[in-house]
Amino acid sequence: MAAKKKAKKKVAKKKTTSTRRTKKEAPKNAFYAQSGGVTSVINASAAGVIETARNNKNKIGKVYAGRNGIIGALTEDLIDTSKESASAIKALRHTPAGAFGSCRYKLKSLEANRREYERLIEVFEAHNIGYFFYNGGGDSADTCHKVSMLSEKMGYPVQAIHVPKTVDNDLPITDNCPGFGSVAKYIAVSTREASFDVQSMAKTSTKVFVLEVMGRHAGWIAAAGGLASSEDTEIPIVILFPEVKFDQKKFLAKVDNMVKKHGYCSVVVSEGVQWPDGRFLAESDRKDAFGHAQLGGAATVIAEMVGNELGHKNHWAVADYLQRAARHIASKTDVDMAYAMGKASVQLAIKGHNAVMPTVDRISNKPFKWKVGMAPLSKVANVEKMMPKNFITTDGFGITKKCRDYMLPLIKGEDYPPYKDGLPKYVRLKNVAVPKKLKKFSV
Amino acid sequence: MAAKKKAKKKVAKKKTTSTRRTKKEAPKNAFYAQSGGVTSVINASAAGVIETARNNKNKIGKVYAGRNGIIGALTEDLIDTSKESASAIKALRHTPAGAFGSCRYKLKSLEANRREYERLIEVFEAHNIGYFFYNGGGDSADTCHKVSMLSEKMGYPVQAIHVPKTVDNDLPITDNCPGFGSVAKYIAVSTREASFDVQSMAKTSTKVFVLEVMGRHAGWIAAAGGLASSEDTEIPIVILFPEVKFDQKKFLAKVDNMVKKHGYCSVVVSEGVQWPDGRFLAESDRKDAFGHAQLGGAATVIAEMVGNELGHKNHWAVADYLQRAARHIASKTDVDMAYAMGKASVQLAIKGHNAVMPTVDRISNKPFKWKVGMAPLSKVANVEKMMPKNFITTDGFGITKKCRDYMLPLIKGEDYPPYKDGLPKYVRLKNVAVPKKLKKFSV
Repeated sequence: MAAKKKAKKKVAKKKTTSTRRTKKEAPKNAFYAQSGGVTSVINASAAGVIETARNNKNKIGKVYAGRNGIIGALTEDLIDTSKESASAIKALRHTPAGAFGSCRYKLKSLEANRREYERLIEVFEAHNIGYFFYNGGGDSADTCHKVSMLSEKMGYPVQAIHVPKTVDNDLPITDNCPGFGSVAKYIAVSTREASFDVQSMAKTSTKVFVLEVMGRHAGWIAAAGGLASSEDTEIPIVILFPEVKFDQKKFLAKVDNMVKKHGYCSVVVSEGVQWPDGRFLAESDRKDAFGHAQLGGAATVIAEMVGNELGHKNHWAVADYLQRAARHIASKTDVDMAYAMGKASVQLAIKGHNAVMPTVDRISNKPFKWKVGMAPLSKVANVEKMMPKNFITTDGFGITKKCRDYMLPLIKGEDYPPYKDGLPKYVRLKNVAVPKKLKKFSV
Repeated sequence: MAAKKKAKKKVAKKKTTSTRRTKKEAPKNAFYAQSGGVTSVINASAAGVIETARNNKNKIGKVYAGRNGIIGALTEDLIDTSKESASAIKALRHTPAGAFGSCRYKLKSLEANRREYERLIEVFEAHNIGYFFYNGGGDSADTCHKVSMLSEKMGYPVQAIHVPKTVDNDLPITDNCPGFGSVAKYIAVSTREASFDVQSMAKTSTKVFVLEVMGRHAGWIAAAGGLASSEDTEIPIVILFPEVKFDQKKFLAKVDNMVKKHGYCSVVVSEGVQWPDGRFLAESDRKDAFGHAQLGGAATVIAEMVGNELGHKNHWAVADYLQRAARHIASKTDVDMAYAMGKASVQLAIKGHNAVMPTVDRISNKPFKWKVGMAPLSKVANVEKMMPKNFITTDGFGITKKCRDYMLPLIKGEDYPPYKDGLPKYVRLKNVAVPKKLKKFSV
């Protein structure tokens, strides 16, 4: 019985191969997956991929999406995006988070778990997938790179294109990462608004407002808080960057000076700020699926410190997911870039590129101009882009003009979603499963 | 020398009095002040007051604003709003927080501190102020009422009109309080967005998202989180109201069920939620200027509980000032109402009313219609409007259709501020001081 089954399988395989040979023109399908923490514009990249593929049906067959990211590929849980209407795909452009589900699942090294990489190729082969579009950050770029290399070795070459995404803005080569501009806009707008609030209350009540923002290793998001203050709307803001070791004495003196001078002060603190000995301000024992320490609580540490040491009444907020999901106040520049990265990925694939990532290349600041570029994944994977030193003021608590000139174009423009009954109308896809062809595989 | 000064002063006073007598037609000035926690639309009420007064110059002279609220009246620190351009006053409509400064300063009872009330009347008399517009919540309505009564007793009658404002939505008689609709919209939108985020991540990472919102005694703001889920966009949401004593076992079972059924769940927790013994979940020793316990931290308590007892990975956010300052996502209905309340206050004053508050009177839900009404301050002061029992589902964790029907019209419509360089362009007034006429007074 077992032998019979095996024989049957062999025949089926042969048939597939011959079919592929005879129908030389039948285009390969594409696989698209979202990876890691989602953003308010990652679905705009998805829209870019799917719409561009639909416009090139002679080159690319169907676009299959991984349900819950790469896990969907491993478990052969594929979503047939061709079942979605044009208007649903269009609505992805204004819908935050990951429409197909994302995951925090990092493929181990090839040596440690070759089985997973082989399974990916097996699934790709079974569904005639010739293109792998992986929408994520640094870890995903690495996976993408490995898939490209291994698929060639295994005799089923897949063109792997990494679609850049991360609110952390820490991918190298590209001018910025889609997702960052919108979180930056959210933080800048929120800091400005809350600062107006504190200023109103400062005479008898709250004098210091503390906002905790994301950014484990790099202070890009914290820096965006500095944009809240501009030439025509000056606001006293103290920024705590993960790049600058926390100096409590200097910090308290800075805040106290600001309160004395302006009557109030806002503090934007990155979740990744560390004490001089390297411990996080917000250290906890919890770890995420990638083994990174899970943070949260820097704001309370800072607020208590300001209250106890300076005696200033304070309020604190932790933006957490609100900041990266806030599609309602997304940056138009960011949405445009996210879409463009998705579109460019498909165009690069069609041109025959492999193991690359489209990039945002800045041409000029005034007026802001940019074009789509390209970077090899070998130079992207596992490289973390930190804030340049000259983006932080010499006292370590603010942003320089260089930083401002870099960031302002990224938060420019509004791109409001449609509303119904006072709420943004975000799309939920049907997410119809592609029939499975392979044996079960556990992750 | 001292005697000479006194004599001079007497003459000056006499002169003022005679001037007032000869110019019988000269209209009285108005005093306007912002009180308590500010909102994203309190300045829209200010615009309503000032623009309407400007349109009735034959009835109302100048509008003087209190710098930092009622403290500005006590210290004779008045702002001459006539120095502001029409465009600056217009821009108040889209500017959050208190443009003249607010304060948390509650006048003591008449018995405990008659001196302060007398000083108010003194300042009003010195600046020919015949109208007192006080923009605040329940405490301010009480002050407003007292000022009206005392001014009459003291022989310098002032028409005192309370302009309703509070994100807490806890004033009686009026259908709602300007400020609430916008904070409700912010919470509903943010909860929807963060829920989309969690749903994307739930397969391998965060399954429960906790959002802490304002609302010390009444669950109006927490209830708004329930609006995030609608017929066409269902979201599993558990709401923790201050009106419902916290039942840990029932709560954890509810969350676990939701995660089992939907894969994820959002929790909206009011800062005012209490344990069965009456302690706040987020209890701390800090008190605000009114002596109310200062809260913050319910989200962390809930998040830890969900993590420890259910083992679900979670994230938490504390919206704090962001929610009440978020003019960028204000409700158009709310902005319109805030402006209308300011406008109506002046109109009521002109008509000769005293010790009253304009109200929002709802005429119908579908279509939503409302008109301006009026309530006597004797019925407003010191009455706190709680959520009706039938607004909360029988299990205590959700909102009913009645609640939804009440709230949805209040978050309807968007009223975006103008933007410059990616940031909302909020106005800062010149806030020119009116020359002082009286002796110093300390508060």
